[in-house]
Amino acid sequence: MPQLRLALNQIDATVGDLAANSASIVQWTRHSAEQGAHLVAFPEMVLTGYPVEDLALRPSFVEASRTALRALAGQLADEGYGEIPVIVGYLDRCETAQPKYGQPAGAPQNAAAVLHRGEVALTFAKHHLPNYGVFDEFRYFVPGDTLPVVRVRGVDVALAICEDLWQDGGRVPATRSAGAGLLVSINASPYEQNKDDTRLELVRKRAQEAGCTTAYLAMIGGQDELVFDGDSIVVDAAGEVVARAPQFAEGCVVLDLELPAAGAVPEGVVDDGLRIEHVVLSDEPLPPYEAELTGGYAERLDDAEEVYSALVVGLRAYAAKNGFRSVLIGLSGGIDSALVAAIACDALGAQQVYGVSMPSKYSSDHSKDDAAELARRTGLNFRTVPIEPMFDAYMGSLGLTGLAEENLQSRLRGTMLMAISNQEGHIVLAPGNKSELAVGYSTLYGDSVGAYGPIKDVYKTAIFRLAEWRNRAAAERGQVPPIPENSITKPPSAELRPDQVDTDSLPDYPVLDGILELYVDRDQGARAITAAGFDEETVARVLRLVDTAEYKRRQYPPGTKISAKGFGKDRRLPITNRWRELG
Amino acid sequence: MPQLRLALNQIDATVGDLAANSASIVQWTRHSAEQGAHLVAFPEMVLTGYPVEDLALRPSFVEASRTALRALAGQLADEGYGEIPVIVGYLDRCETAQPKYGQPAGAPQNAAAVLHRGEVALTFAKHHLPNYGVFDEFRYFVPGDTLPVVRVRGVDVALAICEDLWQDGGRVPATRSAGAGLLVSINASPYEQNKDDTRLELVRKRAQEAGCTTAYLAMIGGQDELVFDGDSIVVDAAGEVVARAPQFAEGCVVLDLELPAAGAVPEGVVDDGLRIEHVVLSDEPLPPYEAELTGGYAERLDDAEEVYSALVVGLRAYAAKNGFRSVLIGLSGGIDSALVAAIACDALGAQQVYGVSMPSKYSSDHSKDDAAELARRTGLNFRTVPIEPMFDAYMGSLGLTGLAEENLQSRLRGTMLMAISNQEGHIVLAPGNKSELAVGYSTLYGDSVGAYGPIKDVYKTAIFRLAEWRNRAAAERGQVPPIPENSITKPPSAELRPDQVDTDSLPDYPVLDGILELYVDRDQGARAITAAGFDEETVARVLRLVDTAEYKRRQYPPGTKISAKGFGKDRRLPITNRWRELG
Repeated sequence: MPQLRLALNQIDATVGDLAANSASIVQWTRHSAEQGAHLVAFPEMVLTGYPVEDLALRPSFVEASRTALRALAGQLADEGYGEIPVIVGYLDRCETAQPKYGQPAGAPQNAAAVLHRGEVALTFAKHHLPNYGVFDEFRYFVPGDTLPVVRVRGVDVALAICEDLWQDGGRVPATRSAGAGLLVSINASPYEQNKDDTRLELVRKRAQEAGCTTAYLAMIGGQDELVFDGDSIVVDAAGEVVARAPQFAEGCVVLDLELPAAGAVPEGVVDDGLRIEHVVLSDEPLPPYEAELTGGYAERLDDAEEVYSALVVGLRAYAAKNGFRSVLIGLSGGIDSALVAAIACDALGAQQVYGVSMPSKYSSDHSKDDAAELARRTGLNFRTVPIEPMFDAYMGSLGLTGLAEENLQSRLRGTMLMAISNQEGHIVLAPGNKSELAVGYSTLYGDSVGAYGPIKDVYKTAIFRLAEWRNRAAAERGQVPPIPENSITKPPSAELRPDQVDTDSLPDYPVLDGILELYVDRDQGARAITAAGFDEETVARVLRLVDTAEYKRRQYPPGTKISAKGFGKDRRLPITNRWRELG
Repeated sequence: MPQLRLALNQIDATVGDLAANSASIVQWTRHSAEQGAHLVAFPEMVLTGYPVEDLALRPSFVEASRTALRALAGQLADEGYGEIPVIVGYLDRCETAQPKYGQPAGAPQNAAAVLHRGEVALTFAKHHLPNYGVFDEFRYFVPGDTLPVVRVRGVDVALAICEDLWQDGGRVPATRSAGAGLLVSINASPYEQNKDDTRLELVRKRAQEAGCTTAYLAMIGGQDELVFDGDSIVVDAAGEVVARAPQFAEGCVVLDLELPAAGAVPEGVVDDGLRIEHVVLSDEPLPPYEAELTGGYAERLDDAEEVYSALVVGLRAYAAKNGFRSVLIGLSGGIDSALVAAIACDALGAQQVYGVSMPSKYSSDHSKDDAAELARRTGLNFRTVPIEPMFDAYMGSLGLTGLAEENLQSRLRGTMLMAISNQEGHIVLAPGNKSELAVGYSTLYGDSVGAYGPIKDVYKTAIFRLAEWRNRAAAERGQVPPIPENSITKPPSAELRPDQVDTDSLPDYPVLDGILELYVDRDQGARAITAAGFDEETVARVLRLVDTAEYKRRQYPPGTKISAKGFGKDRRLPITNRWRELG
């Protein structure tokens, strides 16, 4: 059987930065060539970054992408890699589409090309377009209608893009119909908790359906609300895993494959209306060589480390891609801001992390001490600015009471953080967690201030688990655990009035989070949640809080999407909706 | 030819409020029956409100909608209206759809039913689903695959929902194939500037394609970011306008029609794969009667009045549907906050409008005077709270300079407004206009504070036009023009440093708005904009401002969508995008 050395480049890309993404593709192609690769692949839309969102509707950007693709083909040949076919995702437009009401203007496509000998040898577009969860691809793209097959060194290689594998039908059965010897799918599949397991089973199943070895190449890094976790996978036609790349690490998986020799490829339309487009790049199999490279099998991270890594990668990408080197965090001494600070130190280095303690007259001594202790342990830059003078100035003019007085303190801190941010150039991080945001237990323009909310998709109970894991991991490495024990063990409090604790207003967090997961993430109703074992009155109370908190949530800054269904695009209730789960 | 008296109820609905929407449908059916109507129609999704967004994915809400529909059928019969077929939009689910990856969970449908004799006589779902602009219907709905035809008093009436008319193919040609005598389309079509003209031409064209009289029933009111402008239209088979309802007014259009007698309706599948579903409700034509009601032809509003009315309707709906009776506005003496105040007074009454002047040491005397004069002219509730004590407290602690000092003043005002809002219960209105938001000329958490931005989709040049129109309209009615002349004529300024004016940082507004319209609303590139006659350097400067302002814009509160393409769902650049139109 013919042999092929395949290089899967699991790399990051920045939306819109065509120059940097092109340079990165050249650099990793060079690395792949040095490893002796015969076929090189890059992730979905690697040239433009993913997701491009409304940029897809801007003709000048579509043209810039097409121009950059042709330039890239030329550059690869100029640098001596013209003989190696390189699969590259990019943004294209469908030249044959007629303008049609309801179709994206300009007929943009989520496309990929095979570059070879300085030319664009073949292009195709994603066939199945996802339009759920974080995806809106029906807004932006026209689907592709071909099954692309390139013959490389006597092996027929079928190509697909991401959702083409997730949905039934289409390119996977068409790959079998075409008799391809290898299926390469390029992806930009955003991280969700436990998605790695789902993805593995999916690729195993699809390989068996396609009837050939299947390579699933993932993206890594972060783009705005999305994190890409890597974890590229190669499985054989029997569904057995051949190689698996690390999670959350950029790199190149190179492996030698022995694949069926190309036979007669059918012409015309196969499954799901797909027309086979077959291009022969090199018909002759390679002379037999000793297979040396296996691609390896990276160890899986455990659950806490996986989520923590996603948060670090997401924050690092967000700061870097926004052009910020340093971050600013309000440190209350509580666990949320402490975990955010630990994540920031891991993402950017403690010298790039600035913490401010902003005590009021209601702040306890232990809060101030815990904030200082966090700074001492991590080495982040620390200062204290009391809010009492500002508080007194407002109270003198307005005479506030109750909730207005509580929120004022939070907003004075938000204004303080933004003032320091504007003066010194750090980006502000918001410390809100998913539990408190879900029920509206936060202050708009107060603790919600920040360009990025690293833990906005993490429930409070998971915050505790992550903090404990991070401290344990430090201890195991012989380092100082970053988060003060007292921040983990003391009862959570907003400290906006005397002796306030979260449980004055909310159920215990394990109960709250259990109910929220069923209501928010799984769309279950009151009856089903009560049947799952929660107290009826508590369920009613929590659901009312969620139903009335939507307004605040809308105002919340973007952040890392972690949960199966976060508060991002997955939850867009009409703001003024009057429907309540409970009458 | 058989006769039919048709009642088109152009009414408002609130998302989620099934009880109130049901009550409203009963009330307007009563009114229609009193007018002698033989067929009664209500807008798209009137029972649930529109758009329901993620509520479509919540099974308990879908069931609540279905239950409410059956209850409504029973109630209408109980009240004696069982013999009148009533067309009602609601949320349903497709009972025959198999669960499928990539399809909305639970297979929800944007549906409508014909209620008759206490039963649901027929249901169908929207065939063409819009997924552009403000629409995301591929996320939420499974399309319908029938052409519904009900025979009413010997006339075959084909039915459609909104987008079914906008896109080519589908129910319009199918109506002709079915030989229907009347096409009724129910809609929730959001307002855009000049959309009324487009809509009129569309309905005229479709009526000719359908080959029969076509009734286009519109919604009126506001839901979150959307405004519905009414303007229902009836045209005959030749495309001539028979009746036209008022813009921005709730009401019932009743008219007598003479329509072709029903013939043989074909069976099976017609155009675009649609299966004809034909239900005979009453075969016998009415005894001939004297046609009395023509439906009328409402006068069109001129351009300025139309936009101003949309802003008033949108704000009124937003406040009411959020449960707020009063609004709070920071009054700078400038034109933006003055126009917002005038709109608020028209929407809610001056006694429900609270204005605060918050001068700093940089505020000019004329600013303070103009704010007070606005209050005097409109009769809104007015107070003055200087921000100097708060400003001094922050400056004493932080020693800010430059932009940080400018932004601080704006944020102190935002905090002030939120404190008063929390203390007294008014909803805060943000005064930002589309020009300044497009280029990032505003302060995050400062002047951007507010739950609703009434003029966020209105360019600055249009602000001037609206202010002048409002004053002129007052004068023509013999009332006091609400907006002080000086607010209109003085050079716009943020007054955050001595002698600051907007043109220090921005081109003149007519130039700025001209460039923005081409770049933002029409997706044109630098070359095309320059070719349209704008100075190359100014184009470059404006495009750079827009490209780097996306981050701020993301944080902006929801508001009325006015422009052809606002900053809402129409413009979602990735936040960290590095692409610049100019290199």
